[in-house]
Amino acid sequence: MRALCGVLVSGSFIAVDWGTTNRRAYVIEGGEVASTERDDQGILSVPAGGFPAAVADLRARHGGLPMLLAGMVGSNRGWHDAGYVTAPAGIAEIAANLVSPVEGVSIVPGVCRDGGDGRQDVMRGEEVQLLGAVAAGLAPADALLCQPGTHAKWAVMKGGALADFTTAMTGEIFAMLKAHSLIGAEMAGDVDADEEFRKGVEASADGDLLAALFGVRAASVLGARAPGGAAAYVSGLLLGTDCRARVKPGQTVHLLADGLLARLYSAAIAAIGAEAVVVDSHASFVAGITRIRDMTS
Amino acid sequence: MRALCGVLVSGSFIAVDWGTTNRRAYVIEGGEVASTERDDQGILSVPAGGFPAAVADLRARHGGLPMLLAGMVGSNRGWHDAGYVTAPAGIAEIAANLVSPVEGVSIVPGVCRDGGDGRQDVMRGEEVQLLGAVAAGLAPADALLCQPGTHAKWAVMKGGALADFTTAMTGEIFAMLKAHSLIGAEMAGDVDADEEFRKGVEASADGDLLAALFGVRAASVLGARAPGGAAAYVSGLLLGTDCRARVKPGQTVHLLADGLLARLYSAAIAAIGAEAVVVDSHASFVAGITRIRDMTS
Repeated sequence: MRALCGVLVSGSFIAVDWGTTNRRAYVIEGGEVASTERDDQGILSVPAGGFPAAVADLRARHGGLPMLLAGMVGSNRGWHDAGYVTAPAGIAEIAANLVSPVEGVSIVPGVCRDGGDGRQDVMRGEEVQLLGAVAAGLAPADALLCQPGTHAKWAVMKGGALADFTTAMTGEIFAMLKAHSLIGAEMAGDVDADEEFRKGVEASADGDLLAALFGVRAASVLGARAPGGAAAYVSGLLLGTDCRARVKPGQTVHLLADGLLARLYSAAIAAIGAEAVVVDSHASFVAGITRIRDMTS
Repeated sequence: MRALCGVLVSGSFIAVDWGTTNRRAYVIEGGEVASTERDDQGILSVPAGGFPAAVADLRARHGGLPMLLAGMVGSNRGWHDAGYVTAPAGIAEIAANLVSPVEGVSIVPGVCRDGGDGRQDVMRGEEVQLLGAVAAGLAPADALLCQPGTHAKWAVMKGGALADFTTAMTGEIFAMLKAHSLIGAEMAGDVDADEEFRKGVEASADGDLLAALFGVRAASVLGARAPGGAAAYVSGLLLGTDCRARVKPGQTVHLLADGLLARLYSAAIAAIGAEAVVVDSHASFVAGITRIRDMTS
């Protein structure tokens, strides 16, 4: 490790964001990404007992460098359960709790919260992006960060640490409604941050999601919505419900997202009188994993 | 039709509550149920073009009496679309809008609401029970009525008429979570109005259903809930969310339900400081359909 302009610069290593369905490997040299590779070899595609070989293969492909893994690979469904550190947690707490199943390869723990208020929550993989976004100056040290998705993560950062967080089942409920519910057939259209989406965000102000969802069926039966608009409306309802539970008017949300999800959450956040700032989630991951590595190498 | 003690008493007729998966036929003589028959010949079990024969068969089995049908048989997926009357609606408005596809057989219309507030809602079949409960004195003329189920109906009765109503997708969301979600495997246990159910109702006070549902997963990962408790907890979350959106502390809800659903909704309503009164839904249906018949025969 050497110091460069006051920033610690690690030796070369392989960082892997290894999720349920995909993984992305980065060769990081001197704090910069030298190469990156993405494939669909998520943990679900690894056969029973297959992790040692999969890890060795990945490592060999990238010059046998030391390797630091994050994400679901560290869950009890992955290679090795890396446990959780309890929020509030910063990069130091994460770095102090790496698990190393084999020489030269370490796994980042997840983060849990188990407050006295009886609410439990867990994350695994997102903590690297969240802490990295702040460490790289892409978001302030005190900020509200959001990673939209199947399970949207909302993180309250304080003094650069992950102080508290909430996971909302927003994306999963949308997918489930589309695939399996009474209103699924009406949700065939594309979703974008259009007029129907905004109507859904507006309707979410009633705080009555269970009734609003049936209202989609009623609107269809009564011919009150143009065919094709229901998917965007339901997306607006769900994202609006999610955002209103966590964002106050006037607040700024740093959004670790791109593409459609960035557009949708930005629109929902704007519609409730707050502001979204989109942050590069890949750069955040690289910044986070590099700093964790710096603390341990 | 003849008058008896000031109450109109119809001639004999067959009343049928014909739903999606079941139907129940009542032979009603002089305002009383002479016989009843329940089977699983809901509208989904009737083959294409099969309704005339199914109706004729049912009618012949019960002495060829005049027949009055209610429920999904009057939808566009049933025998004949009987349309909707718009709330507020009383027995007179329902009776004035029967549809008669064949001589001697009529179908009750549904009720819709399409308020200036942009919220649409529909019911079909429930209106007979709701209006019947009040007409029979089983609930006051001004009351909040609830019919729990896949799609829970909440009706505001004013002066004996159905003034307004809301449908909540409560039961469908529960079934969908159990069958298709990340937390479905944890929802294997039985549901009853127990301690875990009450904890769910309590947690619903946060008004953050999307996060509370993911919390079920987190509690399981962190070992914070005894195995088998998640189904009752999720049921409490959903019913609590449903009730809190519509019931104020101190209010009385008349519940057209029996068995487990009556126990669960009664417990949820009590937990938020209101009171549930259970009403016989079959007696309500008979009272409602008899009064509709009285107005038309």
